[in-house]
Amino acid sequence: MAEPALEGLIEALRRLPGVGQKSAQRMAFHLLQHDREGAQRIAHALTTAVNDIRHCERCHTFTEAAICRTCLDDTRDQRLLCVVETPADQAAMERTGSYRGLYFVLMGRLSPLDGIGVRDIGLQQLVSRAGDGSVDEVIVATSFTAEGEATAHVIAEALKLRGVKVTRLARGVPIGSELEYVDLGTIAHALVDRR
Amino acid sequence: MAEPALEGLIEALRRLPGVGQKSAQRMAFHLLQHDREGAQRIAHALTTAVNDIRHCERCHTFTEAAICRTCLDDTRDQRLLCVVETPADQAAMERTGSYRGLYFVLMGRLSPLDGIGVRDIGLQQLVSRAGDGSVDEVIVATSFTAEGEATAHVIAEALKLRGVKVTRLARGVPIGSELEYVDLGTIAHALVDRR
Repeated sequence: MAEPALEGLIEALRRLPGVGQKSAQRMAFHLLQHDREGAQRIAHALTTAVNDIRHCERCHTFTEAAICRTCLDDTRDQRLLCVVETPADQAAMERTGSYRGLYFVLMGRLSPLDGIGVRDIGLQQLVSRAGDGSVDEVIVATSFTAEGEATAHVIAEALKLRGVKVTRLARGVPIGSELEYVDLGTIAHALVDRR
Repeated sequence: MAEPALEGLIEALRRLPGVGQKSAQRMAFHLLQHDREGAQRIAHALTTAVNDIRHCERCHTFTEAAICRTCLDDTRDQRLLCVVETPADQAAMERTGSYRGLYFVLMGRLSPLDGIGVRDIGLQQLVSRAGDGSVDEVIVATSFTAEGEATAHVIAEALKLRGVKVTRLARGVPIGSELEYVDLGTIAHALVDRR
């Protein structure tokens, strides 16, 4: 095959995360053979999103306005700030229905090996936001992975310097699990954090 | 999240084969956060491909011209026609370096359950192409799966009615495999087809 438009499409689709040569080829063939309307829709959606989506000036999540709806919602508790890694994590928090405060979305996590430092997660903006006297408590809800924990640590240290109260989501045994099948690190943490 | 541009992008990316809600979300976040230039490139490549890529009038493969380069290549053996399911299969045949004839690409395979019938694989065009007296032998190289075998059978029957010689790729033990680990159906076929 030496059709430039086809080669170009396969090459471009490889930019998608988790998509290699074979998947890109399968996607290109599928779209061209069975779903050209889908291809046009994807192209249009990409262009629209790239043009319209930016970061909320207050919480950094994706938004089409200068400030996102969540930040503008004055029925929310303005004195609580929850720090999450991604908009997907924020959506998960929202779905619990147990949180009514505001958010700060890091849009990533510290990962020195990938060259992602404190500047990339907007640590400075988080500290000035949380340290301006309007926030009583910052709940750090980064992942419970090595990188997420390191990120939580750096954030907590920076906020404590400004005298802000920092808490972390509880570690423990997940709901619905039998102790026998829970990993030992989790049980050990649940024991230490018993209440 | 209720940003229409973001929701629209995730929804559109789900049109890609093998991509569900979670993958589409991950792709959208990745492109918007880390690779907006990639997003634009994909959009452009999709539009270009949809506009420029059509089917070769002779062999049905993807091409930007009316007739593809392979069909126009007069150094090839015009009296041999190899029937494959997809351009990817055609590319695999080409990479072997052992075939110098022409192709007919079905752009699919018979699959009654998915509503793919003889019209969708261009059986009529294949029969008139192979039966016009210019072709000595048709090599059926569809997959060795249930659907591929059924497709091969239907093609062979239709071509034999026109008096065309039809052959099938040999079934047998793959190169480099130890007999102990080859599935029994393959060994049985290799035994029947011994030479």
